[in-house]
Amino acid sequence: MRLSQFFMPTLRETPAEAEIVSHRLMLRAGMVRQSAAGIYTWLPLGLRVLRKIENIVREEQNAAGAQELLMPTIQPADLWRESGRYDDYGKEMLRITDRHGRDMLYGPTNEELITDIFRRDVKSYRDLPKALYHIQWKFRDEVRPRFGVMRGREFLMKDTYSFDLDQEGARRAYNRMFIAYLRTFERLGLKTVPMAADTGPIGGDLSHEFHILADTGESEAFLHGDYLSFDPIGDGVDYDGDLQPLVDKWTSLYAAADDKHDTARFADEVPEDKRLETRGIEVGHIFYFGSKYSEAMGATVQDADGKSVPVQMGSYGIGVSRLVAAIIEASHDDDGIIWPASVTPFDVGLLNLKPGNEATDGACQKLYDGLNKAGLDVLYDDRKDRPGAKFASMDLIGLPTQVICGPREAEQGRVELKNRATGVKDIVSIEAALTALTDTSTGTAP
Amino acid sequence: MRLSQFFMPTLRETPAEAEIVSHRLMLRAGMVRQSAAGIYTWLPLGLRVLRKIENIVREEQNAAGAQELLMPTIQPADLWRESGRYDDYGKEMLRITDRHGRDMLYGPTNEELITDIFRRDVKSYRDLPKALYHIQWKFRDEVRPRFGVMRGREFLMKDTYSFDLDQEGARRAYNRMFIAYLRTFERLGLKTVPMAADTGPIGGDLSHEFHILADTGESEAFLHGDYLSFDPIGDGVDYDGDLQPLVDKWTSLYAAADDKHDTARFADEVPEDKRLETRGIEVGHIFYFGSKYSEAMGATVQDADGKSVPVQMGSYGIGVSRLVAAIIEASHDDDGIIWPASVTPFDVGLLNLKPGNEATDGACQKLYDGLNKAGLDVLYDDRKDRPGAKFASMDLIGLPTQVICGPREAEQGRVELKNRATGVKDIVSIEAALTALTDTSTGTAP
Repeated sequence: MRLSQFFMPTLRETPAEAEIVSHRLMLRAGMVRQSAAGIYTWLPLGLRVLRKIENIVREEQNAAGAQELLMPTIQPADLWRESGRYDDYGKEMLRITDRHGRDMLYGPTNEELITDIFRRDVKSYRDLPKALYHIQWKFRDEVRPRFGVMRGREFLMKDTYSFDLDQEGARRAYNRMFIAYLRTFERLGLKTVPMAADTGPIGGDLSHEFHILADTGESEAFLHGDYLSFDPIGDGVDYDGDLQPLVDKWTSLYAAADDKHDTARFADEVPEDKRLETRGIEVGHIFYFGSKYSEAMGATVQDADGKSVPVQMGSYGIGVSRLVAAIIEASHDDDGIIWPASVTPFDVGLLNLKPGNEATDGACQKLYDGLNKAGLDVLYDDRKDRPGAKFASMDLIGLPTQVICGPREAEQGRVELKNRATGVKDIVSIEAALTALTDTSTGTAP
Repeated sequence: MRLSQFFMPTLRETPAEAEIVSHRLMLRAGMVRQSAAGIYTWLPLGLRVLRKIENIVREEQNAAGAQELLMPTIQPADLWRESGRYDDYGKEMLRITDRHGRDMLYGPTNEELITDIFRRDVKSYRDLPKALYHIQWKFRDEVRPRFGVMRGREFLMKDTYSFDLDQEGARRAYNRMFIAYLRTFERLGLKTVPMAADTGPIGGDLSHEFHILADTGESEAFLHGDYLSFDPIGDGVDYDGDLQPLVDKWTSLYAAADDKHDTARFADEVPEDKRLETRGIEVGHIFYFGSKYSEAMGATVQDADGKSVPVQMGSYGIGVSRLVAAIIEASHDDDGIIWPASVTPFDVGLLNLKPGNEATDGACQKLYDGLNKAGLDVLYDDRKDRPGAKFASMDLIGLPTQVICGPREAEQGRVELKNRATGVKDIVSIEAALTALTDTSTGTAP
């Protein structure tokens, strides 16, 4: 993509309304624009990141055996009256009356709707277990939306719902999601720690929050430092196997956000040199809530003896749009964003420092064609602008690798490769740059 | 995917509420379930088709130079007050009041919101032309929603907006979308004819509807039969070149839906043996509306002389969720759906007529592994059920190719290949079946 044509309105000044760094950087990089309080338009650069995160979340849900469907954003109030939550939910629920005077709402979550889908078509234990998920826009009418997409009103969430015949089955479903979540955040380049959580208004008795660690996170986090050196989950998890030992390991050490932190227990359970006090951002939450909804809404199946039993359920959420901001909180410097390779909006930024110059134009075209041909996404800054402005905006938007092409080097067939994260620069031949960037055995870093 | 695990609740009986064939078949095949009047949940089978259509639409928009962003579903009413449409739009607009008493709405279309995005960040003719699109859920509070997803209230639409400095530029933008639309529908396996259209409440003076031809379509269509033998648009359109001759060709002959049909002109312009009277379904609509919104909302750019001029706009919609139903209307028989290869939810249906039988289990496993390895999506009916029920549900869901594996043939290393569209069956060796289905030079048809 040529930057001269790409719709990426960067801002030089820091927008006054942005209180946290991810919000400032997303506005400055031209990733989002606010269309109403807590409601954002995702511009092309931001949408690319959102979709990459969404796809990683999807792949890991599928790997864990969950099946994707798509529920609508607008729901009938009657389903929420059945569960008893319509009156309980409060003003965060966006309530709507349609032209015929029927009470509707913009879904803040989907337990009722999925239970309705399930009860209509699933009648036998033979059809279990099932895990169904969707990735859909939700609305919560926050009294004071702020922090950009971190606490917006309209937000993209992945929510999975599991259906099992009994508690042991539900526990296995819970474990599958627990591990899938660790794996998902790992692929997003994040350090994540599961923390025991209150089950809140949703009910039930088994619940974990997943917090990513970021110095600028919203909540304090207290944890055993050994979590940071745990082996990653890695490829090829056997989701049909017994995941309990792995879940036990990841819940064996102390970890708590401020609302659940117990100073005495922390001192007691964690050796002093292992006590880590940092900050975290909640990006996932998983619950087992048993038959809370299935009993209220009559979602029963016949068991092997022909007896009708309410199905055991759990729900599992990931804040997909929030993750965009959370990743930035975890990965930025004074100059801007530093994208992990897995979610970067483009793989490579190519800077032509003197458009119109024969040597730089030729070198850039060769690189642009070669990199595109190798399947890399390249953002080519071909604009007539000062080099300093080009450096600044490329650092701001945070692509992992930059190829900088100035007239002096280009005349000698050379370009500069810059690693955005480390700042390390190398002057190499055009051919060597192409080889370094397209050699899949070493990734895209110079 | 094993059908024993897949959430695909098919119905044997025809649902009483479904008036048209696509609605009946989508319910029976377990593609959708109604969650409220005109509001549907897309079950896994339906979602697969929806996503395939969405991706083809996206690829062709990108090829035509449009850039994807994503606007929110909820919009502030104030933008619509600026354009003057807030009061005009009537009861089809779903109006919402948030917890602070602010007037909001669920977007039925996005001219105002995109004009707001544009005017905030684009100031110079140098940034033009631009074409921006999104694929997002819309809501229109139809007084009587019906025909399933064909005329739902919550629906998925692709809408593009073009911004140009002058009318000639806007005309080129219009032509690019005109051709991209023909190409999109062609890839979806549809016969489409552009028909001159009223511009309606949206204003402007250049507008076409794209109707696909289907015997069960909603409106009558009258056209010159030569349209059916026009060359397809094909790969590799040069969207930077002059598309006017191609647009002229596709608008040269008579074509009108019932609301614009002129019996006298039809008789006058079309030789009797070329007069085709059939039925159509509107799946796309493109408009040029000039400065209607840019003047009302102050979306101006500086031209080369430094003069401030309102930008010239057009909008271009495709009903993505409606297309799922429209394709079924155009491609089905008494037994069920017949998917075009480009949008089929799975490439191949594999039927094990006797699960538990060593020969059929072995043959099916070999085929399942081999086809998956070749990158084909296979739905493997491994359920314990009567062969007749398996035939019926596989025909119902309409995958292009079936591999039928019964015990007698399997013992001799053979299976039956069935082409869903033609009904033609061939008995071949397992190896020959694998070769026929994975040979990319001939596609997936036996």
